[in-house]
Amino acid sequence: MAAAVMTVEALEKLLADEFPQAFHAGSGLTIEELWQGGCRVRQGYRDNFIRPGGTISGPTMMTLADFTFYVALLGAIGPQPLAVTTSLNINFLRKPEQRDLIAGARILKLGQRLAVMEVEIFSDGVEEPVAHVTSTYSIPPRQR
Amino acid sequence: MAAAVMTVEALEKLLADEFPQAFHAGSGLTIEELWQGGCRVRQGYRDNFIRPGGTISGPTMMTLADFTFYVALLGAIGPQPLAVTTSLNINFLRKPEQRDLIAGARILKLGQRLAVMEVEIFSDGVEEPVAHVTSTYSIPPRQR
Amino acid sequence: MAAAVMTVEALEKLLADEFPQAFHAGSGLTIEELWQGGCRVRQGYRDNFIRPGGTISGPTMMTLADFTFYVALLGAIGPQPLAVTTSLNINFLRKPEQRDLIAGARILKLGQRLAVMEVEIFSDGVEEPVAHVTSTYSIPPRQR
Amino acid sequence: MAAAVMTVEALEKLLADEFPQAFHAGSGLTIEELWQGGCRVRQGYRDNFIRPGGTISGPTMMTLADFTFYVALLGAIGPQPLAVTTSLNINFLRKPEQRDLIAGARILKLGQRLAVMEVEIFSDGVEEPVAHVTSTYSIPPRQR
Repeated sequence: MAAAVMTVEALEKLLADEFPQAFHAGSGLTIEELWQGGCRVRQGYRDNFIRPGGTISGPTMMTLADFTFYVALLGAIGPQPLAVTTSLNINFLRKPEQRDLIAGARILKLGQRLAVMEVEIFSDGVEEPVAHVTSTYSIPPRQR
Repeated sequence: MAAAVMTVEALEKLLADEFPQAFHAGSGLTIEELWQGGCRVRQGYRDNFIRPGGTISGPTMMTLADFTFYVALLGAIGPQPLAVTTSLNINFLRKPEQRDLIAGARILKLGQRLAVMEVEIFSDGVEEPVAHVTSTYSIPPRQR
Repeated sequence: MAAAVMTVEALEKLLADEFPQAFHAGSGLTIEELWQGGCRVRQGYRDNFIRPGGTISGPTMMTLADFTFYVALLGAIGPQPLAVTTSLNINFLRKPEQRDLIAGARILKLGQRLAVMEVEIFSDGVEEPVAHVTSTYSIPPRQR
Repeated sequence: MAAAVMTVEALEKLLADEFPQAFHAGSGLTIEELWQGGCRVRQGYRDNFIRPGGTISGPTMMTLADFTFYVALLGAIGPQPLAVTTSLNINFLRKPEQRDLIAGARILKLGQRLAVMEVEIFSDGVEEPVAHVTSTYSIPPRQR
């Protein structure tokens, strides 16, 4: 796998500066791996993710997917914090366990104006995915 | 518009009991109207919704949509807290203002096993929608 | 409703010239109404639309939705045959009858680079929709 | 890879009997491989797939995806021709070449009532995919 345009450290610093509401010491988010075309992010388990029936909430998984896409995209195109999600489609596949979630992103297309990605989300240590997500991003024209 | 199966008050009590992580005194969520086939929910503005560029985050809108669908569905079928989202598709249309969000839900299909709904989300007082969402729910067989 | 940028006649001529595979004398497609921001298209019933169980096939409805979006978009922005679909999401709601399909399109957002639309498809004369579709289009930079 | 519940020959016979409008001698469709959990289908190139700009139409790819999902599903659950698509989401990634399309399906979830699948579509001999599709199917209760 080719190296990403940004290192994990540089990207974490950018996220902490630009997205302090989403990425902060207590968020439980860790960028485990980053390469050109994808990444793997861990969301530490927290009790307030739980919904009736003991399952982790859909919004928890959508929020994780959105963050993971953003990491994969900035890793591929460099620091452009104004890239915006234009659409997201999620299929919930299985009830997640009460443990960490692992999200693996793959860039399907990286164009000049549009990026398309997919994420699979897993319960840590479980083989079958709990959710599958695709998303499109609009990339602003490069500022010079 | 026909009356929903549950009153707003009964539904709010159910949500506070069953979804305390999502619906609580500080959540900023209000069920403004509920009828058989739809509802309108307000999400009060909070500073931690903000993302780079001064816009409200995508996960904030997805979380609101998910909650709004759930309100419309329980209003139509009564207290069945184990109904689960099976898919959600969102198109982000415009940058939301830094003010309350209003979500209007409409049930497109209410079958024995599956419900399909759409939500349009608006910035309070602005005519053009900021997001359009469709979602499907799996309805568990009725317990007797 | 404001008038579209193109008349139905001008648009039909453009479609017959540029999309002869999709829009021709035997296609059964009629643009019933066109306005700035939407349109209504009829697909005449044909026996080869049928699938097991006597229902009209999903691809028939997806093809109709794609055509209807294209009509609404060109009606709003004028003759730009290179606008391309970037995504389409369809929910199948009910079994269509063995009769004409009516598709009603509404433009949710018309930006410089991206358009988002929704279509509801009905069996002719039946009140409840058979499918709900959203789609995004990429609009090429204007040639001068 | 485990063997599918049906052989390619048995499935082709079922499709020709039950879906003669979609699968017939002139359809250009070939089931190239079938296993428990997925399949690969080829759509032979035909001139009437073409759209302005020399690209293969979106409906051609949606129709291929729908067929490929159906093959993968019946291969996994056996002859149940009344399984119905409940939703389909497609992202168009690149302009297909004027050559055969290859669709590879993977079942993400096979439940008692619901199946979720993804398909990637390629131009024959080209490495990057032209479209990514996810779809959900409703599986009818088994008749005895």
